[in-house]
Amino acid sequence: MSSTMLKLYESSGSPNSRRVRFFLAEKGICLSRVPVDLGAKEQVSEAYARINPRRVVPTLVLADGTAIGEVPAIQLYLEETHPNSPLLGSSAREKALVAMWDRQMEQEGFAVVMETVRNAAAGLKGRAIAGPHAYEQIPALVERGHQRIADFHADLEARLGETAFVAGERFSVADITAIVAIDFATKALNLPIPKSNAETRRWCDSVASRPSFAA
Amino acid sequence: MSSTMLKLYESSGSPNSRRVRFFLAEKGICLSRVPVDLGAKEQVSEAYARINPRRVVPTLVLADGTAIGEVPAIQLYLEETHPNSPLLGSSAREKALVAMWDRQMEQEGFAVVMETVRNAAAGLKGRAIAGPHAYEQIPALVERGHQRIADFHADLEARLGETAFVAGERFSVADITAIVAIDFATKALNLPIPKSNAETRRWCDSVASRPSFAA
Repeated sequence: MSSTMLKLYESSGSPNSRRVRFFLAEKGICLSRVPVDLGAKEQVSEAYARINPRRVVPTLVLADGTAIGEVPAIQLYLEETHPNSPLLGSSAREKALVAMWDRQMEQEGFAVVMETVRNAAAGLKGRAIAGPHAYEQIPALVERGHQRIADFHADLEARLGETAFVAGERFSVADITAIVAIDFATKALNLPIPKSNAETRRWCDSVASRPSFAA
Repeated sequence: MSSTMLKLYESSGSPNSRRVRFFLAEKGICLSRVPVDLGAKEQVSEAYARINPRRVVPTLVLADGTAIGEVPAIQLYLEETHPNSPLLGSSAREKALVAMWDRQMEQEGFAVVMETVRNAAAGLKGRAIAGPHAYEQIPALVERGHQRIADFHADLEARLGETAFVAGERFSVADITAIVAIDFATKALNLPIPKSNAETRRWCDSVASRPSFAA
């Protein structure tokens, strides 16, 4: 399915961009991708600020020029306009449960990994929070982040002992958010899923076997 | 409009509960409310944990017993089942813009106010993050919180110079999230909107004049 009137500004190394790429691949949506070079700090350039004043990736630009930032907002637009293979749930009850679980995966997993990385990375001094404002790193957040990631791993293991996927018996956006968080914690912080977490490893193998995982 | 098969577990003093009460009042939805006494720590009781294992308020319980936690997930369920007076947008484009602005109001406003209060309050030592896990307070987050709230006030003033409401020309959930954050910053941290922020004060008067504001 092609939507060549849509443009996605994104970066190959950005976990938030990966959440959108994974979503697009699951739904088989093709659109124009515009790489933003984070290494060269292109996201803080005046040219990019005219596209997204928050100066973060990804941004989805619609045919009429409307710019949508924030990963869940981009995913909502894509789901509404491409309702095939729903990733945000079908009934009101299922949509609410997917939203609840996706938010927990983000707030207790994804956002914690990002916070831990941003408060530790030497290259992000004075840039501890993505966006237009400069905030100093807080070392105590790195220590707390390690504890919170361990809690996230334990909570996810318990949840996946009850259901096949994070939000229930169907694959959903909550699985995408969780696996991207887990993958980034492994690569950027060397904090992989504990070997004894059998349920999470079973789920991880299943999610990683989807072609969209490579997106 | 009555939905007596729905039960909302909530607390009068909880800003997250207020976000849901405001939303219900705007849509004219009546449901059964069950007060949870946060002063008596009822939310960490075993009885409440059986309703919501995250041990936070609010929780919406459906007629079939399904428990929905997380404010945006509860609001999504209510919008899907009561589509009158939409607060989450109508078209795909509008839904995405409302989601984007609501998230910015939450992440840069509401969540920052909550973080600042939780990391400062004497009664919340060892409970700096709501939920089932114990995390110590981090004093540096209180200092950063004051800076972030000042940035939030300035960014909101700039935005409201462009549009009547946060997400555009129509009142939406993003206005609810923003006004509850602003009100709580004023009351709990003595950080009101700066007097010179004329656009925000114009918007604030308009939002506070809605009957739902008292919910």
